[in-house]
Amino acid sequence: MSEIIILSAAQAQEFCMEVLAQAGVPLGEARICTESLLDASLRGVDSHGVAMLPTYIERIRSGQIVPGRALVIRQEGPATALCDGQQGLGPVLACAAMDLALTKARQCGVGAVNLVDGNYAGALAFYAERPARQGLLGLCAANSTPRVAPQGGREGLHGTNPIAYAVPTLGGEPMVFDAATGHAAARVKQAFEEGRPIAPDIALDREGRPTTDAAAALAGVLLPVGGALGYGLGLLVDLLCGGLAGGPCGRDVPPVTELKQPYGCGFFALVLDPARFGGVACFAERVAFLAESARATPPAAGVDQVRAPGDRARQEQARRRQQGIPFSGQRWQVVLDKLAGLGVEVGRWRG
Amino acid sequence: MSEIIILSAAQAQEFCMEVLAQAGVPLGEARICTESLLDASLRGVDSHGVAMLPTYIERIRSGQIVPGRALVIRQEGPATALCDGQQGLGPVLACAAMDLALTKARQCGVGAVNLVDGNYAGALAFYAERPARQGLLGLCAANSTPRVAPQGGREGLHGTNPIAYAVPTLGGEPMVFDAATGHAAARVKQAFEEGRPIAPDIALDREGRPTTDAAAALAGVLLPVGGALGYGLGLLVDLLCGGLAGGPCGRDVPPVTELKQPYGCGFFALVLDPARFGGVACFAERVAFLAESARATPPAAGVDQVRAPGDRARQEQARRRQQGIPFSGQRWQVVLDKLAGLGVEVGRWRG
Repeated sequence: MSEIIILSAAQAQEFCMEVLAQAGVPLGEARICTESLLDASLRGVDSHGVAMLPTYIERIRSGQIVPGRALVIRQEGPATALCDGQQGLGPVLACAAMDLALTKARQCGVGAVNLVDGNYAGALAFYAERPARQGLLGLCAANSTPRVAPQGGREGLHGTNPIAYAVPTLGGEPMVFDAATGHAAARVKQAFEEGRPIAPDIALDREGRPTTDAAAALAGVLLPVGGALGYGLGLLVDLLCGGLAGGPCGRDVPPVTELKQPYGCGFFALVLDPARFGGVACFAERVAFLAESARATPPAAGVDQVRAPGDRARQEQARRRQQGIPFSGQRWQVVLDKLAGLGVEVGRWRG
Repeated sequence: MSEIIILSAAQAQEFCMEVLAQAGVPLGEARICTESLLDASLRGVDSHGVAMLPTYIERIRSGQIVPGRALVIRQEGPATALCDGQQGLGPVLACAAMDLALTKARQCGVGAVNLVDGNYAGALAFYAERPARQGLLGLCAANSTPRVAPQGGREGLHGTNPIAYAVPTLGGEPMVFDAATGHAAARVKQAFEEGRPIAPDIALDREGRPTTDAAAALAGVLLPVGGALGYGLGLLVDLLCGGLAGGPCGRDVPPVTELKQPYGCGFFALVLDPARFGGVACFAERVAFLAESARATPPAAGVDQVRAPGDRARQEQARRRQQGIPFSGQRWQVVLDKLAGLGVEVGRWRG
């Protein structure tokens, strides 16, 4: 089926709000959750966008996610907080943790917040960007189910454990970086479905040998990005998100697919206020200088244009705000069928 | 020449102290500088070890490094500090910045220190480990002369910009991670000298095409580690080390080889106190659990044993403490000749 369904940003927003309301999500939480899904869809990060809505509903129905459960501060210092997410909605908890780190950074110059007993929060760029829009540096990370092998190993040790940061840019939108430290299963699955091979450094087969065969990779294990770099930073994410609180780390993080039990993943937020260093304007100028230097770099063979982190997502965001968010007809059908199967009325969104 | 010169740790220490004293480095500063060089040599990181001593002396003689210039705090908050290194000795400044971050973390739970107008500080593991030995999480980064291309580009934008972290481990030595975000020129040079090809994702040739030819790579440009991951984190290091202070970033960082002018690189230190989160013992247990999980992972094809970050350096450290630090006779000769050329009396270290 080659049909393409296009939802305007306003339609996608309405769709998310309507579905979340039916699942009993309080209005304020539904707004945050919708914003996070919409943000990913607009940036072109479809794997973390509106099509994830059935996954949220499924986890709410199973009890893995408990809407209405707010972040509780277990321990607090002038610049730090240890928070318990109580199995609440991931995006709601991540926003609260990030905003708490921001408040502390305003007071102390730096704020560090660790959240445990959280849930899947989607693409991290959304959270990192909140402090950046106010002139601060925002950084966050999330740990997840162990599917990525340590360097030299052939069994999952840590999750794809992404790190994101965002910084204010003089005369422009914040520069936003969001990347996983481990290669993601979603890309391998997509290659498998499309009958394509995968790059040689993404996964090992079941016997621990490098493979470009997507099917063999799915039966094997994913690799850290950039070898030792992704491996070490993947562990750092586990320590910041889980370890600091004495919470789940590495092989202790439960499978997110075990819907009857709490997920137990963690989140870490760090905010720095440039006002306590060389000043906000000065910092934003440095960011603009770096981004412009990147864009002005002569491209490598076969590359049209060098981009600063987040440039592609920003372009996609502008385009999709104008032209809407595209879904393959088949994918849209699957989203609606899943929701219907979960008892959500979605009739008016068909066809 | 296949001769191998071996210095015991005590001899290497004596050698460094003697040479630094002749260059007019005050005793306390010479001790820190020696400790940093010796630490790298013992870990097996020879590119940043005792053989770097002539480079320090050369930069002291040229005025790029000014011994005796201490770190000056320009702006300070409860958990942050912006410091000026005044072209002092890199290792001395980096230790002072890290210790200041540690003091602030003890008070506020987190400490963030940015140092500008610094100098080359060698391997970062040494600095990150200082807070870890006291039960805290230490993280640091350093920016440097732009030799690494942005992803998709063919001209240097940022330095190899390493990140290091160290964490306390229950019942053992701290787990220490230290990695560059960009591939290092030193490895390409070594491959060239040994007539070996380089891995395909390390560098581009002069025309911006991927190459495995070390000579072509030396005429071209280095690549970030792991593509977008190393690129984005390389820029983050520039922003934390230079940007926060409004100091040199990216192409603004002067060539370290211009010995007559200040280098102007920066350093960033972040320390987190687990006592403000789940507790130090709890955290150290989590680190031990992660490290042990890593080591217990079945190895990939062709790998003997999976290692936790820093394991190899720890093993080398134990071996070299016992058996001494090896230098090829040729390399040792070059070190002594360079020092003699800089007016340092090294006669008793020959033969």
